[in-house]
Amino acid sequence: MPDTGFMQALDRVNFLVSQKLDTLLAVPDGPESWLFEAMRYSALSGGKGFRPLLCSASAAIFDVDEHRAARVAAAIECVHCYSLIHDDLPSMDDDDMRRNKPSLHIAYDEATAILAGDALQALAYEILADEATHASPDVRLELVSQLAKATGMHGMVGGQMIDMLSPNLELDAGGLTRLQKMKTGALIGFAVEAGAILGNATSEQRQALLGYSHDVGLAFQIADDVLDVRGSSDEVGKTIGKDAQQNKTTFASLLGVGRAHDQASLLIEQAVAHLEVFDARADVLRQAAAFVIHRDS
Amino acid sequence: MPDTGFMQALDRVNFLVSQKLDTLLAVPDGPESWLFEAMRYSALSGGKGFRPLLCSASAAIFDVDEHRAARVAAAIECVHCYSLIHDDLPSMDDDDMRRNKPSLHIAYDEATAILAGDALQALAYEILADEATHASPDVRLELVSQLAKATGMHGMVGGQMIDMLSPNLELDAGGLTRLQKMKTGALIGFAVEAGAILGNATSEQRQALLGYSHDVGLAFQIADDVLDVRGSSDEVGKTIGKDAQQNKTTFASLLGVGRAHDQASLLIEQAVAHLEVFDARADVLRQAAAFVIHRDS
Repeated sequence: MPDTGFMQALDRVNFLVSQKLDTLLAVPDGPESWLFEAMRYSALSGGKGFRPLLCSASAAIFDVDEHRAARVAAAIECVHCYSLIHDDLPSMDDDDMRRNKPSLHIAYDEATAILAGDALQALAYEILADEATHASPDVRLELVSQLAKATGMHGMVGGQMIDMLSPNLELDAGGLTRLQKMKTGALIGFAVEAGAILGNATSEQRQALLGYSHDVGLAFQIADDVLDVRGSSDEVGKTIGKDAQQNKTTFASLLGVGRAHDQASLLIEQAVAHLEVFDARADVLRQAAAFVIHRDS
Repeated sequence: MPDTGFMQALDRVNFLVSQKLDTLLAVPDGPESWLFEAMRYSALSGGKGFRPLLCSASAAIFDVDEHRAARVAAAIECVHCYSLIHDDLPSMDDDDMRRNKPSLHIAYDEATAILAGDALQALAYEILADEATHASPDVRLELVSQLAKATGMHGMVGGQMIDMLSPNLELDAGGLTRLQKMKTGALIGFAVEAGAILGNATSEQRQALLGYSHDVGLAFQIADDVLDVRGSSDEVGKTIGKDAQQNKTTFASLLGVGRAHDQASLLIEQAVAHLEVFDARADVLRQAAAFVIHRDS
């Protein structure tokens, strides 16, 4: 059972992010309202909010105003949603269910899903560049720059490309780790790093958070692979058993479910150890690490 | 026949943009090289370079260093290419040919085309946020912010959404003009505006360039509609006659080819009139306006 402080922080950031996205995605009068409805369907669909939580919990260490942190968290949620929408498309992972609802290309159509993803990506940068996000232009620019690097060809999108190719790649543990660092780890890393950027962290503090996010990112993916084997569709909210069906190498298939779970636990211990330079203000991040392997969806 | 100064400026900016994209898209060792090759296939495919030219010609009015202007032009070309790649997908306009070559989803596959587009969008922001683009953080942030607004849900992507819906919308001239201002005009407008942002233009100068870009953007789209009726596939480099086939309202179908052409000519005269506040350094922009209606592809 996750700690109360963690659950409260998660609810709070999800509330603030939804509030901000609700305003930003106000539906206009023209025929493009269809696009906005589609974006809202995905971005306001009650995701777990794990990445937004990491951003706000990291920012909280440095006493960053929660509304600024929530704007960055909203940008991260936009990018995360765009990547899920595009990953679910028939020519990609071909998933019909997401967060216990029909995927966007099922609820709307493929063209709308492609465009909603594209527009959510642009919206993320619009949010970060706005001065409501931070008074310092340098801080906003660093957010823009790091998000672009984390989610572009050398990061998330590059990782998704390798994942698409993976049934023909015969990846070993090293190759799979690299794939997951790009595909999942880079955006998780940005979420944690963003708090440090907003809070003008020292380079020692940033190093600690970087180490934490690497370990948490990898543990998160291993736990995901285990859930794909062990979970039920209802709990996980999307189709399960897809990895084996698509002949994808996963940590579960490489290590077996038991050893994969042990590996994730070890990474979580390591992640928490990185945080010892911080005081109790890092407790939500500590609890977030534990949540990664105790979640059931 | 376009003026020599214009052709030289076009060649020069295309050379500089290709040079920069060639470096930025250096192919890495891992399996993600497939993605980079796909991005290069589109972004280094010898497009006309009209949007990059507008950016560099606008910057030239303010004596902006040509390499800085070319970086912004490269970002614009990334966004333009991403939009073409996604527009060509089977679930969107379903075009098999682009720039006299197979479209990216034909030459590679649909998943790669979606991801290459996504990564090109991220790359655009990475380029703009880098200090090599401009020494001033405020200038770089304004570029990021204006690009995101021009190409997101209220701009290019919103316009493409309306275009997809248009066979069922029975658009009149007003509705079609609004669609095209969003779909094509917003990025053309950003290309011109970016020169002014880089050059710290006065608000009077920005207004003049804004007026110019509105008229040129609309004329460009009208000329495109006329080419879709009149041109040959070889000249235009993509499938023609698609608009009628897809039952889309165009300026050619609304006004007839003759009146549409007249309308474009009028807009070009208006566009050039906006530039009277500038000296001979705006000549390439003047010639660019004429090029819009005299091109055959």
